[in-house]
Amino acid sequence: MSLLLTLNAGSSSIKFALFEQRPHGLDRLAVGQVEGLGERAHFCAVTTAGERHEQWLDGSVADHGHALQGVLDWLRLSFPNREVAAVSHRVVHGGAEHVEPIVIDDHSRAQLETLVPLAPLHQPHNLAGIDAARVAFSRAPQVACFDTSFHRSHPFVSDTFALPRQYYEQGIRRYGFHGLSYEFISRQLKSRHPGLLAGRVIVAHLGNGASMCAMRGGRSVASTMGFTALDGLPMGTRCGQIDPGVLLYLVSEHGMNAQSLTDLLYRNSGLKGMSGLSNDMRVLLASDLPSAREAVDYFVEQCRRELGGLAASLGGLDALVLTGGIGEHAAEVRSRLLRNMSWLGIDFDESANQAGAEEISLPRSSVRVLVLATDEERMLAEHAAELTALS
Amino acid sequence: MSLLLTLNAGSSSIKFALFEQRPHGLDRLAVGQVEGLGERAHFCAVTTAGERHEQWLDGSVADHGHALQGVLDWLRLSFPNREVAAVSHRVVHGGAEHVEPIVIDDHSRAQLETLVPLAPLHQPHNLAGIDAARVAFSRAPQVACFDTSFHRSHPFVSDTFALPRQYYEQGIRRYGFHGLSYEFISRQLKSRHPGLLAGRVIVAHLGNGASMCAMRGGRSVASTMGFTALDGLPMGTRCGQIDPGVLLYLVSEHGMNAQSLTDLLYRNSGLKGMSGLSNDMRVLLASDLPSAREAVDYFVEQCRRELGGLAASLGGLDALVLTGGIGEHAAEVRSRLLRNMSWLGIDFDESANQAGAEEISLPRSSVRVLVLATDEERMLAEHAAELTALS
Repeated sequence: MSLLLTLNAGSSSIKFALFEQRPHGLDRLAVGQVEGLGERAHFCAVTTAGERHEQWLDGSVADHGHALQGVLDWLRLSFPNREVAAVSHRVVHGGAEHVEPIVIDDHSRAQLETLVPLAPLHQPHNLAGIDAARVAFSRAPQVACFDTSFHRSHPFVSDTFALPRQYYEQGIRRYGFHGLSYEFISRQLKSRHPGLLAGRVIVAHLGNGASMCAMRGGRSVASTMGFTALDGLPMGTRCGQIDPGVLLYLVSEHGMNAQSLTDLLYRNSGLKGMSGLSNDMRVLLASDLPSAREAVDYFVEQCRRELGGLAASLGGLDALVLTGGIGEHAAEVRSRLLRNMSWLGIDFDESANQAGAEEISLPRSSVRVLVLATDEERMLAEHAAELTALS
Repeated sequence: MSLLLTLNAGSSSIKFALFEQRPHGLDRLAVGQVEGLGERAHFCAVTTAGERHEQWLDGSVADHGHALQGVLDWLRLSFPNREVAAVSHRVVHGGAEHVEPIVIDDHSRAQLETLVPLAPLHQPHNLAGIDAARVAFSRAPQVACFDTSFHRSHPFVSDTFALPRQYYEQGIRRYGFHGLSYEFISRQLKSRHPGLLAGRVIVAHLGNGASMCAMRGGRSVASTMGFTALDGLPMGTRCGQIDPGVLLYLVSEHGMNAQSLTDLLYRNSGLKGMSGLSNDMRVLLASDLPSAREAVDYFVEQCRRELGGLAASLGGLDALVLTGGIGEHAAEVRSRLLRNMSWLGIDFDESANQAGAEEISLPRSSVRVLVLATDEERMLAEHAAELTALS
């Protein structure tokens, strides 16, 4: 049976997962990560059976190539005589063109380089992962799956800003992100709740990154994220929606520049910035600090507002799906998000919510509310399997 | 009977209105403006009876003082032996402190100067108008009415951004604007539809500037405008909501700075920028250009999203009030905004809408939809009358 490796390469780490294609579908064999790129790197993998493998990698300054050599060594040791049939890469930006995953060749690799300015904090590391994998797994096709692809079905009004048209033509669009998560949830709905897929659905991906996606017929028609991963909901360390005049003010009055603004808005805002305590919702919910409570209050308020906004975009709502770390596990946040929403047709069942049920709406609720686990790694592997037609 | 003069001083013009206090309330006697400040200025006033007075003012480069001298000359000519008992100024920014209008003295005048960085495009001209009026109408109390005051009742979640707390303390807040319009509408509801005032109301002020205000019990609890007049709905020439990452990109990749971004986002975006044709909704509605249609589509879509978002903030809706130039006069925009909104409880009456009725919802609509004319000048005059206790 074929092995599929998924990679999510960041600036200081590479996360990976190993799947095996079986007649009934994909089995996850292991997950792991290499951390500490740029310094001494640490490898860790855990098989589904629970076997753990950890080690410091050789060398004092590891790059993506060293990290993948570590993955390769572990594969040879743990899965001897098995070969990786395809590597599937999570790539944050596919621009306006890539509405689906692609098999990377020299031409497409070069084209993805041109998108670096659109996602300078992520795209270079994603591409470094691809480059390293083309060396380490030279016989396997390399598949690129884009976080933007799922949103390319947006109508123009959900794809543009109110700028002169030339900026849209130059690529300043509402790309939307978390597309692999939304696509996975869309497939989950198709298999588990096919009646809902045809309707008006909002999926809230609430994790350290957070966004919402409005779907109709299983396709994205609007997202809270826009041109970058900075817009929309507040996140662990990102500000979410903010008046553009704040940036102009911080430049004019505080002497900030693009770099210091990027540091502030990407790394020191959101839940972490508001609370002064943590970017982790679990920590905030457990804290008695007034600033921690305020950060949670703000997060909930902005989620509610975006939910109402996307419902308007859809002309009403048939189902709401909560996913991501917060969406799947923070019952208190779900409860506060869903409270006093009967005007939208949401009547939720607090006991089902607290119990962690898959469906947490009451039978009388005209909007069904589901909590579904997302699995971006599996989505990556499914795309690789489909695109390379493995058997 | 006392005369009240209202002034709205901008960079290149001063708009004014003259009211007379009568036992039954305020009568508007005339409106007018001086245009062309900074060059040769032109004075125009029209009395309520229809008398028109126009002239070029003396001098080649007029300032706010010259403009008010023109107003003074006209008053002496048209209303001889009558004295202005108070001058009421529209001031865009009152900061976090000014929850109500004030009578200007040297101390408060100096304090308003400190708010210039918060509204550099408007506040200096408002203050120049005050300074000129203190000279030209030296015996009349000068009243400052702030566009931000009405929103100072926002809870913290609607007043902050997801930034570290120090930025909030330094004044980076969601001030909200169009407060005089919202306050006027709130008073209209109180007198004409008192049953609605207690409930959940959204007022959409849709003009060349545009925003929405969520009210509960007649007080603002949220606004689509934030720190500056740039946020929220797209406007005649302003972008409205935009991903902050777009600004970072335009700085990093296009070499733009705060000044060129300000020009783009304040003056060349919105309806004008999108359409490439005009900032005037009437022109766009009459045009066959695809870009004009797209601009209107976008305006409507963003209005719908913000309406849904504010309804979520209120936990449902009892009434929607449309006002401002577009809200009061563009039946087609109203129609498109209200269509397919029954999920929110809005069922509107297209024939009443087309006929320009005050109430355009159907009797079965659980949300009442009203079209009310706003009158910021009258609000300015009412504040002056109340604050100076004229009799």
